[in-house]
Amino acid sequence: MTNHPSYESMLQKQLILPQGLLTSYKRMGMNETELAIVLQLWRFQQEGVNFPTPAELIHFLTISEEECSMLLRALIQKGLIEILDEKGPDNIIQEKYSLEPLFARLFQPETKPKEKKDVPKE
Amino acid sequence: MTNHPSYESMLQKQLILPQGLLTSYKRMGMNETELAIVLQLWRFQQEGVNFPTPAELIHFLTISEEECSMLLRALIQKGLIEILDEKGPDNIIQEKYSLEPLFARLFQPETKPKEKKDVPKE
Amino acid sequence: MTNHPSYESMLQKQLILPQGLLTSYKRMGMNETELAIVLQLWRFQQEGVNFPTPAELIHFLTISEEECSMLLRALIQKGLIEILDEKGPDNIIQEKYSLEPLFARLFQPETKPKEKKDVPKE
Amino acid sequence: MTNHPSYESMLQKQLILPQGLLTSYKRMGMNETELAIVLQLWRFQQEGVNFPTPAELIHFLTISEEECSMLLRALIQKGLIEILDEKGPDNIIQEKYSLEPLFARLFQPETKPKEKKDVPKE
Repeated sequence: MTNHPSYESMLQKQLILPQGLLTSYKRMGMNETELAIVLQLWRFQQEGVNFPTPAELIHFLTISEEECSMLLRALIQKGLIEILDEKGPDNIIQEKYSLEPLFARLFQPETKPKEKKDVPKE
Repeated sequence: MTNHPSYESMLQKQLILPQGLLTSYKRMGMNETELAIVLQLWRFQQEGVNFPTPAELIHFLTISEEECSMLLRALIQKGLIEILDEKGPDNIIQEKYSLEPLFARLFQPETKPKEKKDVPKE
Repeated sequence: MTNHPSYESMLQKQLILPQGLLTSYKRMGMNETELAIVLQLWRFQQEGVNFPTPAELIHFLTISEEECSMLLRALIQKGLIEILDEKGPDNIIQEKYSLEPLFARLFQPETKPKEKKDVPKE
Repeated sequence: MTNHPSYESMLQKQLILPQGLLTSYKRMGMNETELAIVLQLWRFQQEGVNFPTPAELIHFLTISEEECSMLLRALIQKGLIEILDEKGPDNIIQEKYSLEPLFARLFQPETKPKEKKDVPKE
């Protein structure tokens, strides 16, 4: 009497992660809440939302908006994520959370993190 | 001067998750640490390790072995994971953490969780 | 001196397939060209294009438009894919290639294919 | 009355491909049968079988063993796959089909293929 959704929809809505993200986040100085924020940023990005607000993020997190903002800043300060300016389809400059520094440290373990002293205030 | 690993190895070591795990864990009563435990169980399972011990799990978590044991029990109590007996290759019965109840609730949202009163002591 | 694209872009542009598609297409009566068409339909679907034309498909196939149309009809006739009417965002009915019959046969091997006698002419 | 396998087993047995493999194989001079061979090599590799024989491959292909051997040689000659010697767990040298040249051309389009004149006879 199961009533599962179509196989098509189950198979379509999946997310791919480098396994190293799960085996290395601790070594890279992240805790489980920061891991969850990174996973949510990655998921939003797949759906075309490149700069979700803390208010949008905490819809899927058990933390407060203030804690979310603080942890986003912490991730930037640790050199794991960064905010980039990107030209959108209309040539309008838009901000984007990039996970590239984190992936670079996963795949090129010798990469030195660039500790940032000045982090943009939100 | 990048020195990345082979594309082959990058592409091989990936993990696939249902997106709903990230959008629904909060609604299902899990916090970020419980999410991380579930993701580690899932990753271990892909590698053929079906019943990692708390000691093995916390190698990749920022929590203590006691907290890990407690959260595993909490996940069982909430009806999200279960321990199954499985026949291994040598016909030996082995225990396994199954995420099937959690996946069933993701894919068949009407599924009622079976709250368990009696949880196996570790 | 490698010049690879960002890890982010490499990791984003991936496609997930049931392994069974590769191990069972032969048993289900498909050849390699039909497999490639199914994979292209699946890829288009991930990008939101639910009803690619043969002309669009052969941009990525080594066959002619006529052969592509013929093989799409053959896949429908074998009960592996079907054309569905779907309500789009504007309430407009749109056609869609669904791979659901094929996935059902992969995941429920006892499923009987519904051989179709009448196939829509293109 | 569906009788699908467990979600766990459905979600575990999946294969991840770079999308570019499907959009670029034609441009890289491959046909659909060669694509299918590459996909089978990739799938075998995920399962730890790094050097499947033509006899093993054609179990999942609609072509003959001779055609399979010929197409494997063609893929090597076009510089898309290569045979590597790898040290196995017991320090024994084992052969392996590597898809690295193909992935390099996907991800670094400027890469020149190294046309091989001398191809190992099977």
